[in-house]
Amino acid sequence: MEFRKFDSDKDVTEFVLHNTELFEPDTQLTVSEIGDGNINFIYRVGQPGGDSVIVKQALPYVRIIGEGWPLSQDRVRIEAETLQYEGSHCPDLVPTVYHFDADLCAIVMEDIGQHENLRHALIARRRLPNLASDLGRFLADTLYHSSDLHLDSHAKKELVKSYINPDLCKITEELFFWDPYCDHERNSINPHLRPYAEQLWADDALKLEVYKLKRQFLCDAEALLHGDLHAGSVFASGSGTKVIDPEFAYVGPIGFDIGSILGNFLLNYAGQANLPGDLAERRDYQAWLLDSVETLWNTFAERFYIHMREKTQDPSFNNEIYRTWYLDKLFADTLGYAGTEMIRRTIGLAHVADIESIEDPQSRANSEKLALRIGCELIMARDQIIDVEALAQRIRRIS
Amino acid sequence: MEFRKFDSDKDVTEFVLHNTELFEPDTQLTVSEIGDGNINFIYRVGQPGGDSVIVKQALPYVRIIGEGWPLSQDRVRIEAETLQYEGSHCPDLVPTVYHFDADLCAIVMEDIGQHENLRHALIARRRLPNLASDLGRFLADTLYHSSDLHLDSHAKKELVKSYINPDLCKITEELFFWDPYCDHERNSINPHLRPYAEQLWADDALKLEVYKLKRQFLCDAEALLHGDLHAGSVFASGSGTKVIDPEFAYVGPIGFDIGSILGNFLLNYAGQANLPGDLAERRDYQAWLLDSVETLWNTFAERFYIHMREKTQDPSFNNEIYRTWYLDKLFADTLGYAGTEMIRRTIGLAHVADIESIEDPQSRANSEKLALRIGCELIMARDQIIDVEALAQRIRRIS
Repeated sequence: MEFRKFDSDKDVTEFVLHNTELFEPDTQLTVSEIGDGNINFIYRVGQPGGDSVIVKQALPYVRIIGEGWPLSQDRVRIEAETLQYEGSHCPDLVPTVYHFDADLCAIVMEDIGQHENLRHALIARRRLPNLASDLGRFLADTLYHSSDLHLDSHAKKELVKSYINPDLCKITEELFFWDPYCDHERNSINPHLRPYAEQLWADDALKLEVYKLKRQFLCDAEALLHGDLHAGSVFASGSGTKVIDPEFAYVGPIGFDIGSILGNFLLNYAGQANLPGDLAERRDYQAWLLDSVETLWNTFAERFYIHMREKTQDPSFNNEIYRTWYLDKLFADTLGYAGTEMIRRTIGLAHVADIESIEDPQSRANSEKLALRIGCELIMARDQIIDVEALAQRIRRIS
Repeated sequence: MEFRKFDSDKDVTEFVLHNTELFEPDTQLTVSEIGDGNINFIYRVGQPGGDSVIVKQALPYVRIIGEGWPLSQDRVRIEAETLQYEGSHCPDLVPTVYHFDADLCAIVMEDIGQHENLRHALIARRRLPNLASDLGRFLADTLYHSSDLHLDSHAKKELVKSYINPDLCKITEELFFWDPYCDHERNSINPHLRPYAEQLWADDALKLEVYKLKRQFLCDAEALLHGDLHAGSVFASGSGTKVIDPEFAYVGPIGFDIGSILGNFLLNYAGQANLPGDLAERRDYQAWLLDSVETLWNTFAERFYIHMREKTQDPSFNNEIYRTWYLDKLFADTLGYAGTEMIRRTIGLAHVADIESIEDPQSRANSEKLALRIGCELIMARDQIIDVEALAQRIRRIS
């Protein structure tokens, strides 16, 4: 079957009914388009008031731009296979994939509609009790089991080959590691922040550290990353967490995934300094965010350490001195990539609502300055910050 | 056509005559088997007293072991394509590939018979005037043009995929980074050296550095390496140099290739301390070897720097601070991998004739101790040795 965009609700419901056994064959299903839909088409398909599933179809180009910006449809295979891989280790933390069709570039997956987008939850200052430990577990389990610590050499190299994802990696390469470090036309900069952006563009020592992180992003095939783990890729409820949208997955440096999500907690931290609402409440929430950062890292590090000790077959990597060194290295990488996430979300193309929703441009610039200061400090001091408590102290001192 | 081992001289000559236009169709050719042939079959095919070519055929297993040790025949595609890639940048430094047959797993290539194996030349204390600069140029040109400094992201990722080489990488992984650091049954240890090997096995600080280098060997996809650049893979004459046998090629850390060959110069240096012959002559040759190490690195670094400055499109990587940092990093990696080559050639499975040909076991152990001391020092001090002059001084101080 050749690629053909779903043209009607009937196409979508037939795709679901034909390829899954989730509904009786003659069930009447309704289809509604959801999601921001900048790149893909996403549909909710279900019985009114009853069960529903999500259908995602990838076009061979960026939807809102058109055929002038082609994008490999292999990304949907990568997304489906990554969800299946992640689901094999953390079934409760990702939507179940019911069907993937390579020709139609479409996935049928579990509807996680009862969960709230993490970015909205953070802006609303919700305290999600399991969030940080769920994310720490997700990171430890998915990253460990796809690394050379767990896989034999042949399996690891097959994994690298299977997840070569150049179109999507190129987007990250430019938006994270290039645009924000020069006066790029794609950047979006609050006029009140411009002097600080210009100062950053002149900071050669900072830029060298970013170039090193970029080199590592391009070359260091450590483990299968989610690749786009910002707050918008996480959905949470009072009791559970779901990580979605791994279409940027590739085999890269472990610290990139951990740093991306930690950076998002800290972007919200910077936003809380000037978001509307009671000051004491916002300060309390900032403290909760720093606690969450600590819990996330500690959960990750403890589980990753135990996996290394209990499962790693290669004795070069299963010994106390290597485990200790390696976790320290991953922490430094994490801080570096968290810093790049904070900077690119402040002066790059794609901002975050945690800060963007501060209406007054001067107040917004104050949160943006804080995000830049924390981001730069994480990058520059990533080898000196000895643990996650020292990290929290340092952030409190900056703000 | 399915794989079929050449069974007769006629098979081999027909393969040459049918697939190349090097000889008239009815030329009478003679075939002689050459090479050590542990793994592959290698034939010289030519007119008596006239032109000749080399035919190399890879079996699906290790020849001297048999079918019990299977080895992917994809290695011969990798060898042919690497020779072609290297030839596109340094045509004078590799044999020309005339034909590659994927089904028969066989290559027809230029005969470089007038050149001498570099290991034999070093043991005979020959001074090869162009050797070090040829090797520096080979390394700079092949490594630069296959790195992210030169290739766009898509081409680089295709390169990684195309050179996934798990069987051969696994051999290196074990022989370089595991066996020599434990009392492994594959090791071969001079009884006089055993106490020093035991001391090394107890050196946790050294082993941690080796594990870091192993991690980098497994993960760091920097550039297309030759992958097995020891003195036996280099042939030299008074006027020219040829690098052969890149069947271990894969996309890995640049320092691994440079370190492997520098380690071989330094293994000969250690051998010269106890090889037969006039002491003054041997000391002079050691000085020549250190000069060669300096020339090799300096040629590499100067050319690589100029390539970066003149050809690198990505401004993150084409700027003075990155170039300086990157060459320093490559130097440290180089020293580390040179150290692992020296250690594995002294207490691992495969020794080098530069030392092995010292007949008296006690004298041989003295050279072996020197090789171990230099190897350990290069690994441990790789971030402190600031340049290649400091390296030469340090080696003179050790010996």
